[in-house]
Amino acid sequence: MFKSQPLSKAVKPFANMLKDPSKKYKAFKGVSLPNRTWPNKTITKAPRWLSTDLRDGNQSLPDPMSIPEKKEYFHKLLELGFKEIEVSFPSASQTDFDFTRYAVENAPEDVSIQVLTQSREPLIRRTVESVKGAKKATIHTYLATSDVFRDVVFNMTQEDAVKKAVETTKLVRSLTKDDPNMQETEWSFEFSPECFSDTPTEFAVEICEAVKAAWEPTVENPIIFNLPATVEVASPNVYADQIEYFCNHISEREKVCVSVHPHNDRGCGVAAAELGVMAGADRVEGCLFGNGERTGNVDLITVALNMYTNGVSPELDFSDIESLIDISERCNKIPVHPRSPYSGSLVVCAFSGSHQDAIKKGFVKSEARAAQGDESWAIPYLPLDPKDVGRSYEAVIRVNSQSGKGGAAWIILRSMGLDVPRHMQVVFSSIVQTEADKLGRELKADEIVQLFKTQFLDSESSAIKLVDFDVSKNKGSESVRSVVVDLSVNNTSESISGEGNGPISAFVDAISKKFGTHFEVANYVEHSLGSGTQVKAATYIELSYINEAGEKVNRWGCGIHSDVSQASMQAIISVINSLIECKEISI
Amino acid sequence: MFKSQPLSKAVKPFANMLKDPSKKYKAFKGVSLPNRTWPNKTITKAPRWLSTDLRDGNQSLPDPMSIPEKKEYFHKLLELGFKEIEVSFPSASQTDFDFTRYAVENAPEDVSIQVLTQSREPLIRRTVESVKGAKKATIHTYLATSDVFRDVVFNMTQEDAVKKAVETTKLVRSLTKDDPNMQETEWSFEFSPECFSDTPTEFAVEICEAVKAAWEPTVENPIIFNLPATVEVASPNVYADQIEYFCNHISEREKVCVSVHPHNDRGCGVAAAELGVMAGADRVEGCLFGNGERTGNVDLITVALNMYTNGVSPELDFSDIESLIDISERCNKIPVHPRSPYSGSLVVCAFSGSHQDAIKKGFVKSEARAAQGDESWAIPYLPLDPKDVGRSYEAVIRVNSQSGKGGAAWIILRSMGLDVPRHMQVVFSSIVQTEADKLGRELKADEIVQLFKTQFLDSESSAIKLVDFDVSKNKGSESVRSVVVDLSVNNTSESISGEGNGPISAFVDAISKKFGTHFEVANYVEHSLGSGTQVKAATYIELSYINEAGEKVNRWGCGIHSDVSQASMQAIISVINSLIECKEISI
Repeated sequence: MFKSQPLSKAVKPFANMLKDPSKKYKAFKGVSLPNRTWPNKTITKAPRWLSTDLRDGNQSLPDPMSIPEKKEYFHKLLELGFKEIEVSFPSASQTDFDFTRYAVENAPEDVSIQVLTQSREPLIRRTVESVKGAKKATIHTYLATSDVFRDVVFNMTQEDAVKKAVETTKLVRSLTKDDPNMQETEWSFEFSPECFSDTPTEFAVEICEAVKAAWEPTVENPIIFNLPATVEVASPNVYADQIEYFCNHISEREKVCVSVHPHNDRGCGVAAAELGVMAGADRVEGCLFGNGERTGNVDLITVALNMYTNGVSPELDFSDIESLIDISERCNKIPVHPRSPYSGSLVVCAFSGSHQDAIKKGFVKSEARAAQGDESWAIPYLPLDPKDVGRSYEAVIRVNSQSGKGGAAWIILRSMGLDVPRHMQVVFSSIVQTEADKLGRELKADEIVQLFKTQFLDSESSAIKLVDFDVSKNKGSESVRSVVVDLSVNNTSESISGEGNGPISAFVDAISKKFGTHFEVANYVEHSLGSGTQVKAATYIELSYINEAGEKVNRWGCGIHSDVSQASMQAIISVINSLIECKEISI
Repeated sequence: MFKSQPLSKAVKPFANMLKDPSKKYKAFKGVSLPNRTWPNKTITKAPRWLSTDLRDGNQSLPDPMSIPEKKEYFHKLLELGFKEIEVSFPSASQTDFDFTRYAVENAPEDVSIQVLTQSREPLIRRTVESVKGAKKATIHTYLATSDVFRDVVFNMTQEDAVKKAVETTKLVRSLTKDDPNMQETEWSFEFSPECFSDTPTEFAVEICEAVKAAWEPTVENPIIFNLPATVEVASPNVYADQIEYFCNHISEREKVCVSVHPHNDRGCGVAAAELGVMAGADRVEGCLFGNGERTGNVDLITVALNMYTNGVSPELDFSDIESLIDISERCNKIPVHPRSPYSGSLVVCAFSGSHQDAIKKGFVKSEARAAQGDESWAIPYLPLDPKDVGRSYEAVIRVNSQSGKGGAAWIILRSMGLDVPRHMQVVFSSIVQTEADKLGRELKADEIVQLFKTQFLDSESSAIKLVDFDVSKNKGSESVRSVVVDLSVNNTSESISGEGNGPISAFVDAISKKFGTHFEVANYVEHSLGSGTQVKAATYIELSYINEAGEKVNRWGCGIHSDVSQASMQAIISVINSLIECKEISI
């Protein structure tokens, strides 16, 4: 339980800070690119995708995947349409080697199995061995090129690094595409200068030029230069500048596939991938749901589904996102956050009343447009049609104590087919809010439905029930109707009668006489429910009367019946029953 | 359990897709801004911050906060240093009104209490009433300006919207800064064209001009134009263009505070905030941990802590991030994701061996630099010093079956102070990996420590214990030492002796004679442990011998003692004990 804090605590911000930590951090300086063109670009087609779920993703899990889990994941990635999958670091362990063999033996012909290796000869030999016989394989090597990595970790000069990278490339080449015994495989080569984002971009180009010369790629099978933001060190525009600089300066651009590999340390991994593609990158590496070391690799699901807002197909199949959530949570043992873009459980939910209203109106307009053949998507607050990722609309609108009238009404519409009139929504909403406040939590859909039934519909236990009725024209006047109604009042039969200019007003007259209170119909709305032989009428009636204190009171009721007159009468009786229940009137 | 899927399934991507959904989405067109300047900018100072945790955040919770929780949250926001806090939608309910009064009465003098209201007179009156008597208050109104909102939701022309916005502004003005009875408060006014990101930017400027003219702001107390990406509809560079356009075109720029309010539908909320500030925005609105409708508002913690990578102080105090995680998870009942930037539990963890090695080397270099007075931060893979958010280094390195030698060694160093030699690390790492593979999960630090003790240190239950020893020079030769060692062998006293050119080789000689096996010292490393009178020696010795199969076997042991000779002998005895235990030799 919260205790009020003394104000002295509140007015002393920074009390916990011994000194300003900002002093020890230097602003990151990116490459200079005053004539950048990427901010004028948009994404017009899907990039090549590389999933590193089984490698970068798996390596970062507190509990890495078991072999059966890795296999299941691999098949799911194929199902999504990935054509390039980094499956392991095969020289690291027998387990990784064996899994690589499984992937090689089970990959469709058009899928390239990618494997990562350090730039050391025995490891490279073992790595090449692991993918022997594959239809398509990519050997991925990396080398420290950034100042901090070269100096702090490897104690290597830039010249050392270039020499090492060239040696490695030549070794891989001799073991793969230049080896007459290895010709059944289409070999690709990927090189990652690490950490590219923190490497002088000029040097990244220089080392990649040397690697390219050593590999001699072709236009048909370009060399892949992966430019990782191993650690995200600056805002994503800086990364985009680096990518555009690299794309502009690398020679034989047509023989090069530029790949981005953003991490998410500053929360901008998705933006880095998109701006990187705008800056010229051809390929994006990442993981589903942003799995990966620390803050994770970029979330490929978000980058891919974002393409829809560009009117572009991602060329990956996310039509069953729930199955991805399931496999990820089960195999990675890391939850998908409720607010994770596209996939989170709260992402297609609106709790705010004004949002709910807007979404409902959007759906109505959308249906009208669809009837005209226009199937474009324009629903307020929902950038993506939930159906496109296999989600239903049911979850869209949810109701808590902060919700307005629209939310509860939406639930009633979706659950019962009842299109509650606007004025009745206001009344119902306040009933729902009171209940949500009382319980201190969100109301579930079935609780809202139950609340509606209790408030507005008759039940088996209601005091008054409609047994039968007879409407006749008055002989004296063409416009006057008489009604005789048989009721069951606390299980005792009773007949009442009244007159009016229609069956409803005649019935209200009869009711008024019985209770000695003058009821009036303040509002009447009716619509059909269902279709064909099952069609019924749903009627909403608001009665008003003057209570004992002399105040005007209004009250809504609802009736559902295949006979529209009976539906109306039941709506009126439901008002009477609820007045009886709260002792506003007595039998 | 996974069952192998038939290949036919794997080679049919898009099987679930009835048709390509991209056709129904149109590419978003932003404002044209060919001469944009924001990509050349960097963030050089903290923006004004507005927390809307208690309003936008709270409204989106399945279970909104209770009043005690809102109060606790409010005080935490003050403690962090927020000077502008949007606390409620006071006209929506008595609960919100009452909480607003609490905030007004408990806010420090320099904090402005902000309240949101629809543009309707009775609601505005009620809203102004809720903050009466505040030292500083901001009335925040909003109006639909985007085409889809105006058309679909409100059926309002652009002219209608401008008229309505001006009326609202004049009403607020008359009730606040123009009311002689309301002069104890410093009144600010915020206007949000909704949804700005989807509104023609020219019209956003037009309506804001009209509002500004109606309010008549001053340089000292500028009007706040909040430009929300209510729904994120495009990549963050498009939003930045819109912000820069707005900043360039609004008149009397010095009397205007431009505020950004990004949501995260495309996963780019943080980037939108940063690029927005680079584009000229003065103020950022958001929530802690990115709470808010759907994918959430922008995460203010990430935007703020990112400032460090620009060498800029966020002017908010996040030195105790664990307390924020606690309050958020408890009051919002939404978890902080393990990979959430800066705050997630896995964010300062490295599982990969190469990452762990690099981090360790970084720390060593960093300590050397610090000794020279250079306290700049440059640790591979860790963009922020965990200490700056109140986290320890202990969690940095964690060990799973994918980890290399560095991780386990780091745990031993941090937990026991033992700086395990490199070759011994390799041996220990494979023991740890085998154990992690066996358990199929990450090992906890204390499990790793226990494993080290079992493998390399003697215990109470060891077969052989060192009781005493005596080293003497041989009379015949100056360079030869004799050692007599009293052992307890399975609790029976036994004395052994040997000779060598030092106490260790003499002891190894004695041990070799006892077991009839020729042991040799293959490696010897020693370092001090602790300091002052408590200082001890930690000794690591690798013995080699030829086993019965004729193979050369190496084995490490560790000894710790205040006497360096005894530490060495204990290291040797620990090797012997483990050989006895695995029946390589027998007593």
